[in-house]
Amino acid sequence: MQHYPKSILTLIRNLARLPGVGEKTAERLAIHILRKPLIDAEQLADSIVAVKKSIRLCAMCFALSDSEKCRICQDGSRDPSLLCVVEQPADMVSIEKSGAYKGLYLILGGALSPMDGVGPQDLRFKELFDRVANGGIKEVIIATGTSVEGESTAAYLAQHLAGGSVAVSRIASGVPMGGDLKYVDQMTLKCALEGRHHV
Amino acid sequence: MQHYPKSILTLIRNLARLPGVGEKTAERLAIHILRKPLIDAEQLADSIVAVKKSIRLCAMCFALSDSEKCRICQDGSRDPSLLCVVEQPADMVSIEKSGAYKGLYLILGGALSPMDGVGPQDLRFKELFDRVANGGIKEVIIATGTSVEGESTAAYLAQHLAGGSVAVSRIASGVPMGGDLKYVDQMTLKCALEGRHHV
Repeated sequence: MQHYPKSILTLIRNLARLPGVGEKTAERLAIHILRKPLIDAEQLADSIVAVKKSIRLCAMCFALSDSEKCRICQDGSRDPSLLCVVEQPADMVSIEKSGAYKGLYLILGGALSPMDGVGPQDLRFKELFDRVANGGIKEVIIATGTSVEGESTAAYLAQHLAGGSVAVSRIASGVPMGGDLKYVDQMTLKCALEGRHHV
Repeated sequence: MQHYPKSILTLIRNLARLPGVGEKTAERLAIHILRKPLIDAEQLADSIVAVKKSIRLCAMCFALSDSEKCRICQDGSRDPSLLCVVEQPADMVSIEKSGAYKGLYLILGGALSPMDGVGPQDLRFKELFDRVANGGIKEVIIATGTSVEGESTAAYLAQHLAGGSVAVSRIASGVPMGGDLKYVDQMTLKCALEGRHHV
């Protein structure tokens, strides 16, 4: 690797810091960038800096946004009485891709994880409770992950939201669509059996 | 994908143009860049532009270099009577990594490939013949690849350099080190048998 000129080495080192990019891949990417026109390299470089400078969190749902309110919170056609609670911005994007949800979101910023020192005060629980207290919401859909952390976050929220005027639901767990039962783990099968519904 | 703000989409699109980076990977890289400090993003962006602006070809061997002559051509401890001819800068880096060669290089910029319209005038054959004619070189080692194109380039060069005062050699072909014979293709085995040497 030390056989390259210094500026190539610097680029390889910076590229290799990206997740899933090893030294070999970084070398290949650097050589590719070298071969392409300067304008392509400048576009890539500009978009890297632009994303850091222009993106902030939506003031309402804490999604990634380039304005004060994100596109979903600004969208008048969405149902403001439904609030879906997720861990991360990427979870929101996944639900949006499914096209199955037309309400609003609130992004917690993670899940409860005492082992990693993440407690209720580290997540946007206060923001969630405030938003529910402000009224206008009929149902809170808890769509945290099905990991131990996601489940305990869901349990915590369900407990704290219970007894109010707002319905609280949890997304269903079960066998993934297109899944072959023999490859599904026992925990998921247990959930699928417990959550069975009559047809 | 359209669920991200515009600047993230632009970054994803630019990253996805890199070789081996699909839309999913580009999305993951973009989110990673977003999460890291601005200084990291700026360093990455700067190194991408710097590499395009600072790198040129060495005036002697046509390797990637950040000065008029590359580090190898400037190195007085290397043997100037040996000239190794390779197709691409990356081939030179591979030979350097082996540590087995202490002479100089000349990078052709590719291999003869009539199917792709690459003829002798498209490669640095003139530069090679001029350098040999200038004297001081005792041996030209042809280290083009062992593809059809690499072999025909080697044959062409051997033919045009023959009869001069300079020795011409070709790197050996055979079974790779650590290779299991049952996984080696027939063409390579044929080369290995023809190139056998007494021990």
